[in-house]
Amino acid sequence: MKASQFFISTLKEAPAEAEIISHQLMMRAGLIKRIGSGIYTYMPMGLRSVRKVEQIIREEMNKAGAMELLMPAVQPAELWQESGRWEQYGPELLRFKDRHGRDFVVGPTHEEVITDLARRDIKSYKQLPVNWYQIQAKFRDEIRPRFGVMRGREFIMKDAYSFDKDEAGMVVSYNTMYAAYTAIFTRLGLNFRAVAADNGSIGGSGSHEFHVIAETGEDDIVYNPNSDYAANIEAAEAVSMLAERAAATQTMLKTATPRCGKCEEVAQFLNIPLISNVKSIVLAVDHENEAGELSVQVVLVLVRADHSLNEVKLSKIDGLSTTRMATEAEIATAFNTTPGYIGPVATAQKVLVVADKTVANMSDFVCGANDVGFHYVGVNWGRDLPEPDVIADVRNVVAGDPAPDGNGTVDICRGIEVGHVFQLGTKYSEAMKATFLDENGKPQPLVMGCYGIGVTRILGAAIEQNFDVRGIVWPAAIAPFQVVICPVGADKNEQVRDESQKLYETLLQAGVDVILDDRGERPGSMFADWELIGVPHRVTIGDRGLKEDGMVEYRGRRDEAATKFTPADVAAHVLTQLKA
Amino acid sequence: MKASQFFISTLKEAPAEAEIISHQLMMRAGLIKRIGSGIYTYMPMGLRSVRKVEQIIREEMNKAGAMELLMPAVQPAELWQESGRWEQYGPELLRFKDRHGRDFVVGPTHEEVITDLARRDIKSYKQLPVNWYQIQAKFRDEIRPRFGVMRGREFIMKDAYSFDKDEAGMVVSYNTMYAAYTAIFTRLGLNFRAVAADNGSIGGSGSHEFHVIAETGEDDIVYNPNSDYAANIEAAEAVSMLAERAAATQTMLKTATPRCGKCEEVAQFLNIPLISNVKSIVLAVDHENEAGELSVQVVLVLVRADHSLNEVKLSKIDGLSTTRMATEAEIATAFNTTPGYIGPVATAQKVLVVADKTVANMSDFVCGANDVGFHYVGVNWGRDLPEPDVIADVRNVVAGDPAPDGNGTVDICRGIEVGHVFQLGTKYSEAMKATFLDENGKPQPLVMGCYGIGVTRILGAAIEQNFDVRGIVWPAAIAPFQVVICPVGADKNEQVRDESQKLYETLLQAGVDVILDDRGERPGSMFADWELIGVPHRVTIGDRGLKEDGMVEYRGRRDEAATKFTPADVAAHVLTQLKA
Repeated sequence: MKASQFFISTLKEAPAEAEIISHQLMMRAGLIKRIGSGIYTYMPMGLRSVRKVEQIIREEMNKAGAMELLMPAVQPAELWQESGRWEQYGPELLRFKDRHGRDFVVGPTHEEVITDLARRDIKSYKQLPVNWYQIQAKFRDEIRPRFGVMRGREFIMKDAYSFDKDEAGMVVSYNTMYAAYTAIFTRLGLNFRAVAADNGSIGGSGSHEFHVIAETGEDDIVYNPNSDYAANIEAAEAVSMLAERAAATQTMLKTATPRCGKCEEVAQFLNIPLISNVKSIVLAVDHENEAGELSVQVVLVLVRADHSLNEVKLSKIDGLSTTRMATEAEIATAFNTTPGYIGPVATAQKVLVVADKTVANMSDFVCGANDVGFHYVGVNWGRDLPEPDVIADVRNVVAGDPAPDGNGTVDICRGIEVGHVFQLGTKYSEAMKATFLDENGKPQPLVMGCYGIGVTRILGAAIEQNFDVRGIVWPAAIAPFQVVICPVGADKNEQVRDESQKLYETLLQAGVDVILDDRGERPGSMFADWELIGVPHRVTIGDRGLKEDGMVEYRGRRDEAATKFTPADVAAHVLTQLKA
Repeated sequence: MKASQFFISTLKEAPAEAEIISHQLMMRAGLIKRIGSGIYTYMPMGLRSVRKVEQIIREEMNKAGAMELLMPAVQPAELWQESGRWEQYGPELLRFKDRHGRDFVVGPTHEEVITDLARRDIKSYKQLPVNWYQIQAKFRDEIRPRFGVMRGREFIMKDAYSFDKDEAGMVVSYNTMYAAYTAIFTRLGLNFRAVAADNGSIGGSGSHEFHVIAETGEDDIVYNPNSDYAANIEAAEAVSMLAERAAATQTMLKTATPRCGKCEEVAQFLNIPLISNVKSIVLAVDHENEAGELSVQVVLVLVRADHSLNEVKLSKIDGLSTTRMATEAEIATAFNTTPGYIGPVATAQKVLVVADKTVANMSDFVCGANDVGFHYVGVNWGRDLPEPDVIADVRNVVAGDPAPDGNGTVDICRGIEVGHVFQLGTKYSEAMKATFLDENGKPQPLVMGCYGIGVTRILGAAIEQNFDVRGIVWPAAIAPFQVVICPVGADKNEQVRDESQKLYETLLQAGVDVILDDRGERPGSMFADWELIGVPHRVTIGDRGLKEDGMVEYRGRRDEAATKFTPADVAAHVLTQLKA
């Protein structure tokens, strides 16, 4: 490719709305252009990287036995009504009526369409397993699109769906996809981690997220530096900090703690360690009985004062899938006090007490006395108050916690989710009656898995992980071009033109994805363009170099300085670098 | 690829809604699955053909200097309001409001988005010409989706847009695309024709359609078997059947023609040739003056009795861009009679008389007498009635008409439109203020062309042109697989398995797109599947053949019978056939 025949439009400044580095650099390098909020055009330069990502994904999916198909973006609402998601999905789902008034959606995901396909085309266990995937533009009407391609509204996704005859088969399909994802992100040249994940609203029994490790990531990842263990903080198991409950040594005392509405203030005022305090969080669950009568269950969640509540874990507890903050009136009725001094001892009403595992093993602890300006100290379970109604892991892991695999302590890093594998089970096949005939001729629900990769998001994540002050530093596999040839002084020196053209043809013939910058730009702005765009290898063929010592210059995008080569040797050097 | 790892689901019967052969065969071969009206999933087998079409298009577009990018499917309504098409486009345009209540469309085409891109990124004549293209799913809410992928609602399109500094540049870009399209359809292996076309609602000054010739086509194409001349009947020039007007030889006579409301009846009743009759068609144009007052202009269009009105041509006449059928009341007022006996002589009111070129040169003709049951015979222009207000080509060409290029006569065939090239000019750039600075530093509107190919429609068109009683007969370039190997009796004969595997590996290594049918189907159903799917080359490696004479069989999809080869020779024969 010659740059004069390629549209290059770099910018000196990133637009104001670009908050993070990948968004800024993609805009400045002219890889994307904004059309609307969260909606972008991929320019030829950006699309080259998208296509390279897609091709790596495609090759590894095919290798893993998955088959590519292409489902429509527009989907009839009936399918979503069958699965129940027409009701469950919020305003992120783009719904519309066609000219005949029929309801449709623009697909944010394709579980319904693929399950419909499977129930019509998979008749027998002999056809199983099947794994279908597609690479396609999806639309999600994000409430606050931002970060460029990282959280856009229209984006390209690879979504795959496996169908098996039983759980064991599904686990095999899942593990095959897990391995394929590992191969994909390895080939993409990204520093990534597969982490145990929460299943979220998609349902099912097991899942892992694939995260690109980057400081700007939106997710906290708990990992063990000494082992393979990694989990999204939403799902990461927090072990009890106390192996067992010690015997009581203190008598419970109601103690004045004036103007100490926070645990830190109580600890300081009483001159005790923060970890002796228990934090009380009051939530509520609304119930409706069969007669349509409403009632409210007040829930008191207790975590150690230095810990924070993990709402995802809490929502897994029976009956607590949807909690809300309690109102002041509800708090007043249940505890006869106001927030800041609430505690589990002698509540005004019976409330459901949920104690984090650590709290359940605490003794001689401090908590609110349900009386403004007072706390209890020396509180002990069983003696001063009943045992908790529920004991569960409801807190977020913190760095330094013991690793759940027993091997040292965990650390926390930030990640950008670029892939997700789910064990869906029979959630969709049961709702949509997608069955097959088993070996005994009996209908059984198909057992499904689903597997997503955010294709365009990978571009953003790769940049968040690979940039410097001059611009993008693309991993070799997804750079829009592998090599750029920069002639300097070509207008007045025929040898510059000849050597540039010769090298260009040599590299092209060797199958290298090379671009020759024949635009005639001044050296400074030409170099700045290519450093911003992030092409990994550059050869400068300069008027002066050729005259002075007959040499040309090679410089890798991460190199501190250029290295000199004769024009005859530089191609071989570039080819060696490409293989490295 | 092995068939056991590929999802093949053929059907014995096509679904009832499949009216045309390509739709029936695509459904039966399992290339597509219907999700909703005009909405399909491309199954792995069908997607392989789609990708082959896309790849040929991509290669030829790149060769022609066009650059691939990818625009969003979802587009802000503001752009359509700027171009004026928010108002002009009918219910085919999918409009929706996002969660914040802002208007958007799902793009049926991308002139607005690309013009917006150009006005922001093209600053100078030095950046011109530019040609950007994309391959993407589009949505048009057709009122009556039908014919499978031929007139679906969601479909894949290649759309390209060129930007030039002047008309001359646009014509060069247009001709380059015309040549690229010719190369594309040639490589696709289709019998096609480029035909001069009407520009339709997209606007602009010149255009050609590319049609796949097939009896089931929706369009009539006028062509000259002796030359390159071809045009869509909408746009095909109809020459006058009379070089000049002959002198009058008859006196005009009002003649009783009872119950002769049609020209054919008049001709028969009076025993005169049909071509002596003039057909009267009454239309109306609604006007609104600046004061908002409405008025109606009645238009009388005259074509020779054996000819038919061409509404597209009529609409090109000044003031007649939007006509409608006149009401009975309007006809009664203007002609003081009822349809069947209307004519241009002595109308009750002044009406606008538009005569087709042939009619304008007729003499001694017959027409309605504006009196029920009467016609005039021996009518002559200038003597019996004023010369027509407008003389224009307003009729459809018929087979046998003199060719407009003067070289013999034209014929008519039917075609399926698969591509379209337009000279847009400055329609969009002026509406959207997309300018560049010319050599003198003055802003000028960009001069545009646009170029579409219906990617998925090509599959249907290729099948309409290439099928037989057994199924699809794919052109080699777009068959899902080039070669299928069918082992017969592999379960009981190891040699069958070995020879099949050996041939499979040999062809794979030669870069052939081959599938080995290892499903263990019975021969009859296996052969029927592959003939239905339309794979061009088949090698059968049979238990019996190997035992009897050590031979295997090759059969081309169009061959009457199979040819025998030794297992050692068959690969070479297949490779020769692939090159043919």
